[in-house]
Amino acid sequence: METIRTIQGLRSKLAGLRRERETTVGFMPTLGYMHEGHLSLIRAAKAQDGIVVLSIFVNPLQFGPNEDFAKYPRDTARDLKMAEEAGVDVAFVPDVEEMYPTPMRTKVSVSEVSERLCGASRPGHFDGVAAVVLKLFNIVQPDHAYFGLKDAQQVAVIEQMVHDLNVPVKIVPCPTLRESDGLAMSSRNVYLSPEERSQAPILNRALAEAEEALQNGEVRPEQLRQLVANRISEASLSDIDYVEVMQYPSLTPLDPQVTPKQLIVAVAVRFGKTRLIDNRILDLERMPSHV
Amino acid sequence: METIRTIQGLRSKLAGLRRERETTVGFMPTLGYMHEGHLSLIRAAKAQDGIVVLSIFVNPLQFGPNEDFAKYPRDTARDLKMAEEAGVDVAFVPDVEEMYPTPMRTKVSVSEVSERLCGASRPGHFDGVAAVVLKLFNIVQPDHAYFGLKDAQQVAVIEQMVHDLNVPVKIVPCPTLRESDGLAMSSRNVYLSPEERSQAPILNRALAEAEEALQNGEVRPEQLRQLVANRISEASLSDIDYVEVMQYPSLTPLDPQVTPKQLIVAVAVRFGKTRLIDNRILDLERMPSHV
Repeated sequence: METIRTIQGLRSKLAGLRRERETTVGFMPTLGYMHEGHLSLIRAAKAQDGIVVLSIFVNPLQFGPNEDFAKYPRDTARDLKMAEEAGVDVAFVPDVEEMYPTPMRTKVSVSEVSERLCGASRPGHFDGVAAVVLKLFNIVQPDHAYFGLKDAQQVAVIEQMVHDLNVPVKIVPCPTLRESDGLAMSSRNVYLSPEERSQAPILNRALAEAEEALQNGEVRPEQLRQLVANRISEASLSDIDYVEVMQYPSLTPLDPQVTPKQLIVAVAVRFGKTRLIDNRILDLERMPSHV
Repeated sequence: METIRTIQGLRSKLAGLRRERETTVGFMPTLGYMHEGHLSLIRAAKAQDGIVVLSIFVNPLQFGPNEDFAKYPRDTARDLKMAEEAGVDVAFVPDVEEMYPTPMRTKVSVSEVSERLCGASRPGHFDGVAAVVLKLFNIVQPDHAYFGLKDAQQVAVIEQMVHDLNVPVKIVPCPTLRESDGLAMSSRNVYLSPEERSQAPILNRALAEAEEALQNGEVRPEQLRQLVANRISEASLSDIDYVEVMQYPSLTPLDPQVTPKQLIVAVAVRFGKTRLIDNRILDLERMPSHV
């Protein structure tokens, strides 16, 4: 694996690899502090692409002024070791100066899909995500880009942007990976105190119950929402940011007149200072009550 | 020359040409209704690139609600004939449905450089330009893209966007072409009545006088601005939208403490319902008074 810190260096390395291998490029943009979820994206890329590129960049543009940019967990040496062992060909590790050498004047905003859920709680967050992902796509020019569905709204925002701007990249959404007790893997899980950590799996349990309720015929979104919110509230350290039931993949509110093919139940919950997100995408057409 | 109306068709044609010719792609996005100015861009591309692509698309996104989208002059048959004679390899002529199959949710805005001059008179115009140019770049994936400097602010906006988003395209600005009486070539010139047409060359004369004044030592921007505005006002049918003297290429106001390397004197003037723009980029370092 080669580790490259400059845009020019990366472009020239990839041009060489493309000439040599005549294959596709798979790409995973990450904030680093990797876990098994990231490794599953790398495995998905390895299965499809002959050149696998990973970026590690904690993007200041997607953090709000009161968010955790400065204290976001970082361990690049460990990340690079994991990436190499997983078979990544090129790790792109630019610093902030390399990515933003001059004040950023170009803003990319995706309306509708960005506005609810985390978009409402984190104003400007998805503009920052869209801009850095577009920059990285322009730098790497991958054929496929892999994203975890734990950040389902991020995936939806990027898919909308790629569609609207005709970006020549295929987005590959990948399933959320979970700890053995069901907690969705996240770099931010390291922030949790032991007691918070022991309560955090309530998110997954509540979502599983919503899925079960749906399978048992409960299709009313407000009831599903309440069920999830009530269950999460049982955890004494939980502080709900949102629990929402929306159409998927549009992330628009449900229309009472129309049954969508897919729902997403999405939650964001604080435990102390740590904000965790999770979701379940529910396929209404496959539900037995719907047949 | 091949004329292609779909994105998929264009991508596959260009993939084939790239494999065959192993050369660079030069691209000119246009609104059509071509004139000698467009042909000069094609000639610049022919000199540098082995594959030359021209697009003709009147982009609704860059016209305001009270602007001339519907009546913008169109003559695609004539355009295609001119493009073929000039040696274009592929003409891309999508319709609005092909470019915007679903409501556009992604907005691209370039701050500062978009805000003054035409950006102030035409709110949203440069957002529409930025979005369609980015879409076309993603569709064509050219090595070089050629733009006329009559639209100097458009060039500056695109260069800022390309820089900020690491778009892998080199922008090639090309000089403004003029009619024999000095009027800058523009598709909109056909709107002018004979009397308006006879007065319109005042824009170029006023800019030439500003250049001469600068060569004679007049470096005070407000004096240059007044000189141009006064001269244009002598034309009885003229109605000045703006006359501005700014730093180039940043298009920021002059800092009285700092002498920039280049100035732009930019004007927008209505003759009847037709709004014309023109500009002069003045190189202060080459001015004799400055040596």
